[in-house]
Amino acid sequence: MKLASYIADGKDSYGVVTGDGVITMKDRFGGHAASLREAIAGGLLPQIKEAAANGRADHKLSEIKFLPVIPNPEKILCVGINYKSHAAEHGTEAPKLPNIFTRFVNTLVAHEGEMLRPKVSTSFDFEGELALVIGKGGRHIKAADALKHVAGYTCFCDGSVRDFTKYSLVASKNFLGTGPLGPWMVTADEIPDPTKLTLMTRLNGKEMQRSGTDMLIHSIPAIIEFCSIFTPLAPGDIIATGTPDGIGAKQNPPVWMKAGDVLEIEISNIGTLRNKIVDEK
Amino acid sequence: MKLASYIADGKDSYGVVTGDGVITMKDRFGGHAASLREAIAGGLLPQIKEAAANGRADHKLSEIKFLPVIPNPEKILCVGINYKSHAAEHGTEAPKLPNIFTRFVNTLVAHEGEMLRPKVSTSFDFEGELALVIGKGGRHIKAADALKHVAGYTCFCDGSVRDFTKYSLVASKNFLGTGPLGPWMVTADEIPDPTKLTLMTRLNGKEMQRSGTDMLIHSIPAIIEFCSIFTPLAPGDIIATGTPDGIGAKQNPPVWMKAGDVLEIEISNIGTLRNKIVDEK
Repeated sequence: MKLASYIADGKDSYGVVTGDGVITMKDRFGGHAASLREAIAGGLLPQIKEAAANGRADHKLSEIKFLPVIPNPEKILCVGINYKSHAAEHGTEAPKLPNIFTRFVNTLVAHEGEMLRPKVSTSFDFEGELALVIGKGGRHIKAADALKHVAGYTCFCDGSVRDFTKYSLVASKNFLGTGPLGPWMVTADEIPDPTKLTLMTRLNGKEMQRSGTDMLIHSIPAIIEFCSIFTPLAPGDIIATGTPDGIGAKQNPPVWMKAGDVLEIEISNIGTLRNKIVDEK
Repeated sequence: MKLASYIADGKDSYGVVTGDGVITMKDRFGGHAASLREAIAGGLLPQIKEAAANGRADHKLSEIKFLPVIPNPEKILCVGINYKSHAAEHGTEAPKLPNIFTRFVNTLVAHEGEMLRPKVSTSFDFEGELALVIGKGGRHIKAADALKHVAGYTCFCDGSVRDFTKYSLVASKNFLGTGPLGPWMVTADEIPDPTKLTLMTRLNGKEMQRSGTDMLIHSIPAIIEFCSIFTPLAPGDIIATGTPDGIGAKQNPPVWMKAGDVLEIEISNIGTLRNKIVDEK
């Protein structure tokens, strides 16, 4: 099942993507869950699946405006260097434990939304990533149980302002409107093994990154275990799993994103997250 | 004026600290502002000051349970190495721009609340800091205007799980319940020059850190300017300005916090934030 958050008829909503349309679930479950995050927290996904089974689309995809899959996550956790290929292009070794950094919610951008190149940046870079959405929260989750805590998977771009990395990694990752997330999440029942996916990043149609997700240094269960050592994970939390090689900074010459560029992050079995780059005003 | 958030008569509230009591303002302004953050955002501080001028305490301090000064900030931004003395004890140079990291709201602890030593940590450390509360939000704030965006100042302990620092700075700073904030904020009109304060950290009554806030590497205006380059600052946002030398890790032998310890962060003209250390269960 594909779940999306969006604006339809001027109202924030969420629902099930089916073919070229959406079946709005907020109309049916909104009394219990005002947002997709709350629907996940309330354990409503089985009921939503049932309701969608015989439903007809309420809107065409062309009629809705996407929101970030989870527009209001409590936490966004990201893993630094987490593909051997990316560690190699940085000339660093794989860290023994995941190097986590965080993003503010205001960095998120919806599918088809505008990704903002900051005024202060001449080195605005992409990082295509597989992200997961936490379903069942918890603390001190064991790796063996970790996948049971995943509600679904989606595409993410960890937009990076390389100009600032050497001063502050967190600053370079927290510029307003630099983190596209979407277009939807595919529920975990349809992706029993998240190591069997292929991740691709295209800039203006040209493939820049391609990797199997089996190349992760720290596996998804290991990342969940590690994050839950320090923070209680909550339903709707986003964890981005890291980017493979091929980032713009390591091209020769470097490739930086500029206004008018179109960035696509595609993950097999999930879909394609597409964003246009615009200059911050 | 000293503003605090607290629980009184079983209800979340906020008000003005006066002598050994509080004048509850949520009763008077709750229709417009359910929390101190919203009162700040709504520009209500002048009215609150006026209301408090002739008010009598509704509760004694001994009758309330403090909450973190701002219990629900949108963002918590912290500056890494920001005192020359602390840079020196780390053997690093002062960074050219502030090195920012962030904390989750669930790391906050109230005055007199329990600061949690994580199960996984044998190297739990204190970092006494001056923190500011943003009053007027904004983006691309110039240093020359920055102090006009500060609502007030408070004490903070950037509790650090040194066991994890080498893997992930952000993880080491984001353990649940490791960031005491309080006891109250003193409004900026009473602290026209935040470089003229003295910061002290005491562990079980023994002074561990002492510094004038004039020793900051990046000044408060410079920090605000830098943060607002990447993120829109919002009313109630917390910015912690860094810690001076004297942290436990750099004592000989190192001093780590353990259950039963009492930590105090005192800042002149503000007050003393006091917390007991307890082991995570």
